[in-house]
Amino acid sequence: KYLKSNSNMMFNKFLRKSLQIVCEGNKFFHQNCSTFTLTTFRKKFLAQKYLGGKENRYFSNTFSADRRRKSFEDFDRKISLKNLSINQKEKVLQIEWDSERENDHHLFPFVWLRDHCQCNQCFHPVSRSRTMLFDQLQLHVLPTHVEIAENSVLKITWSDGHCSQYTFQWLKERGFTTKANELKRPTTYKLNKVYWGSEILENIPTVKFYDLMTDDCALLTWLQQLEVFGFVLISNAPAEYGQVRQLTERVGFIKKTHYGAEFSVKAKPDPSNVAYSSGPLQLHTDLPYYEYKPGLQLIHCIVQFKGEGGESQIADASHVARELKKNNPDMFKVLSETLVDWCDVGSDEGREFFKVFQNSNGEIKRINYSHPQRDSFFNVDVKTAVKWYEAMKTYQDMLYDSKYCIQFKMTP
Amino acid sequence: KYLKSNSNMMFNKFLRKSLQIVCEGNKFFHQNCSTFTLTTFRKKFLAQKYLGGKENRYFSNTFSADRRRKSFEDFDRKISLKNLSINQKEKVLQIEWDSERENDHHLFPFVWLRDHCQCNQCFHPVSRSRTMLFDQLQLHVLPTHVEIAENSVLKITWSDGHCSQYTFQWLKERGFTTKANELKRPTTYKLNKVYWGSEILENIPTVKFYDLMTDDCALLTWLQQLEVFGFVLISNAPAEYGQVRQLTERVGFIKKTHYGAEFSVKAKPDPSNVAYSSGPLQLHTDLPYYEYKPGLQLIHCIVQFKGEGGESQIADASHVARELKKNNPDMFKVLSETLVDWCDVGSDEGREFFKVFQNSNGEIKRINYSHPQRDSFFNVDVKTAVKWYEAMKTYQDMLYDSKYCIQFKMTP
Repeated sequence: KYLKSNSNMMFNKFLRKSLQIVCEGNKFFHQNCSTFTLTTFRKKFLAQKYLGGKENRYFSNTFSADRRRKSFEDFDRKISLKNLSINQKEKVLQIEWDSERENDHHLFPFVWLRDHCQCNQCFHPVSRSRTMLFDQLQLHVLPTHVEIAENSVLKITWSDGHCSQYTFQWLKERGFTTKANELKRPTTYKLNKVYWGSEILENIPTVKFYDLMTDDCALLTWLQQLEVFGFVLISNAPAEYGQVRQLTERVGFIKKTHYGAEFSVKAKPDPSNVAYSSGPLQLHTDLPYYEYKPGLQLIHCIVQFKGEGGESQIADASHVARELKKNNPDMFKVLSETLVDWCDVGSDEGREFFKVFQNSNGEIKRINYSHPQRDSFFNVDVKTAVKWYEAMKTYQDMLYDSKYCIQFKMTP
Repeated sequence: KYLKSNSNMMFNKFLRKSLQIVCEGNKFFHQNCSTFTLTTFRKKFLAQKYLGGKENRYFSNTFSADRRRKSFEDFDRKISLKNLSINQKEKVLQIEWDSERENDHHLFPFVWLRDHCQCNQCFHPVSRSRTMLFDQLQLHVLPTHVEIAENSVLKITWSDGHCSQYTFQWLKERGFTTKANELKRPTTYKLNKVYWGSEILENIPTVKFYDLMTDDCALLTWLQQLEVFGFVLISNAPAEYGQVRQLTERVGFIKKTHYGAEFSVKAKPDPSNVAYSSGPLQLHTDLPYYEYKPGLQLIHCIVQFKGEGGESQIADASHVARELKKNNPDMFKVLSETLVDWCDVGSDEGREFFKVFQNSNGEIKRINYSHPQRDSFFNVDVKTAVKWYEAMKTYQDMLYDSKYCIQFKMTP
C-alpha cells in the first residue's frame, strides 16, 4: 500500500523494524495525458460519475454535480446573443445571452478584451501565450466599431486601430460575474479542499496501484482526491522497490533532497534522522526548513513489523489549525506570527548537509512543524517564547485528539 | 558568463539567434563542504574580509563588520558568570555574564531550558534532534535545584525529576534578548537583502567560474551574494554545455520541470514558449504557475548574437514593489490581493504539459509575473480587473524605469 501526504498533513510512523521507501514527488500535473485538454476535462463531467458523484458525501457537501452538469451542457449548445451594449463611461461591454435563464449576462472590460485579442499578431497559438507587449496595451482603449459577424463571432475595432475577433463561446466561458467565477474555480483550477477529522477512517480515499498505472481516468481521480483530501491510500502495489518511482514518473518529476530522491525509512545505527530510529515518531511535516519543498510525498510500506507497533498516524493539520483559530484565536495568532527556526545538520549516506531555514509557523497556506528539527536558537523575546509553547501545546493536543487523528497499520 | 536570478528578480533576454542553456537549481545549500560547520562559519569573520569588508558599500550599509568581529571574539574567551537569579513568578532564569560590557545579561524561560536538555535521553547527538516527546514537556516546569558546576557548566534539577546540564557558551549563544537576536540573524540565518536599483550596474556582484569550482571560500561568498542581491554574474566559464550542471551539483540538486532539468533557450520554429521565439522578451519571473518553484535559475550564455540585440535586462522586483507600496499603497494593495491565474499548456520536446496555478501577485515574499503566461480566465469582478490593469501598468513602468532596470549584453 502507498500512502500520500501533502505538506499540510502531519503524519507519523511508529516504526519498529519496519522497512519503507519514501519518494518525494513534485506537485503532480498531467504528463503524457494529451487526451485531457481543458475541454475534455470538462466534458468528463457529463460522461462519468465525478469521484462517485452524489453518493460521495464529501463531494456532495462541496458542490452540486447536477448544477455543474447543467452548466457545461450549455457549452455544447449553439450560443447566441440577445442583446449587446457598450458602456463608454464604465468602459465595459455588456452581453446578454439568448438563454433559458433569466438575466443571463456578462460584463467585459475594454482593456481586458483588447489584452486578449486572439489574432496572430497578439497571441501565439502554439505556446498559447500573449505576444502583444504589455507596453503596447492602452489602459483607456475604446471600441470604435462593434460588429456581430457570422459563426457567432464578435468583431471589435479599437481606438488604437487594431481589429479583434472573439467567438461567443470563448467569451461566455470567461464572463466576469461572481456566478461564473464560482462555477469556474472548482473545474478549471483548484478543487475545494475537504477538511477532515477522524471520521475519514471509515471512508479513506483509496485507489488501486494497477489502475493508476494503466487507466488515465483513475489517475485523474487520484490527483483530484489528493487535492481535495491531501492524502490517498494506494492498495495492491507490488511489495518491492521501484514502485514509487514508477508512479511518480507517470505524473511528474522527483524532487531530490539531501536525503536522496528515494530513501529507505528503517531503523539504522547512528541515524541521521529520528525517523531512522526505532522509537516512536511524533506527528510532523517533513523538510520544514525548505523554502520550496516537495508538494507531495509517497511512502511505500514494503515490510511491516509483526507484533505490537508499526501504526501510522495522520491528522489534517489545516483543519486543526482552523479549529484552533475558531476556538482560540490568540493562540492561532501566536503560531501564525512567531518565527521559528528549523535545522538539519549532519550527513546521510555520504552526503553532508547543512540546512537552516526560518519560516512563520501555522499559516493555513503552509504549516511547518517537526519537533525534533526545531532549532535551539529561538529568535524572539522571552514572553513570546512562553506563549508559543502554550499555543503549540494546545495545537498538538488537538492534533492528537481522537476527533482529528487517525491511526492504522499499513500492510505491504 | 553565468547569470543567476532568484524568484523575485525579473529578467529578460532580448534574443536574436542567441543560444543559452538554462538550468534550474534548487535553493542551494552546502553539500560536500564539511569544513563549514556553524562554528567555522562564524570564525571565518575573524579570518577573512567579509565580502570585501567595509570597502563594499552595500555591506557597510547593512551591518558593521567590526561590531560583528568584536562579538564573535567573545565566544573564544572563557565565559564566566557574574550573577544568576531565578524568577519563579516570571518563570525565567536570568544570567549576568562576567563581561566588560555593562549589563551583559540574558533571560531564559524555564520551559525552553527544559525543552533543550542536552542529555542522551532528551537529545540525539548524531541526528542533532530533540528526542524528548513534546507531550512529555510540562509547560509549567520549575527548577528545584540550580548549581554551577566545574568547566563552566550549569546544572538544573527540574520539578519533573529530570536533571539537565548546559555549558555557559551554549547558553550565551542562545540568549533571549533583542540585541542577541539582531546579531544572530545575519550570521546564523538569513543575510539582510540589499534592494538595488540601476546603480548596481557600476558594481555588479561578479565571481569567477574557476574559483567557484575549486575554492570553498569563493563558493560561500557566492551563496551569500546570491542571498543578498538575488543575482550574481559568473565570468570565465568555458563556453560549452554542461557547466551549469557541474556548478549546480557542487551545491545542490537540479529541480526538473516540464521544460527539462536543463534546456536550450534559442529561437525554434513553433516555439512552446515565447522565450524560444526571436522577438523581444519582457521582464518576467519564470514558472509563475508552480506552487514550489526552483529557488534559483542559472543561465549560461554559450553563443551571443553578433550585431544589434541580445541584451539582458534585470530589475529587482521586490525593490520596485516596495517603492510602489511607498508611492502608491492602493496600487500595491491591488497587486498584492488580486488573484491572478497563470497557465502553460502545450508540449516541449515530447513532454506534454498542462499547468494551471492560481496565486496572489505582488507579495514581497514572492512575486509572480509573466505577461505571456497570464491566463485569459480572470476570476475577479470587472472593477477589480480594471484596477489591476492600472496598477500592473504602473508597476511595469517603474520596473522598466532606468532608475531600476539594468541592461547589458552577456558574452560567452
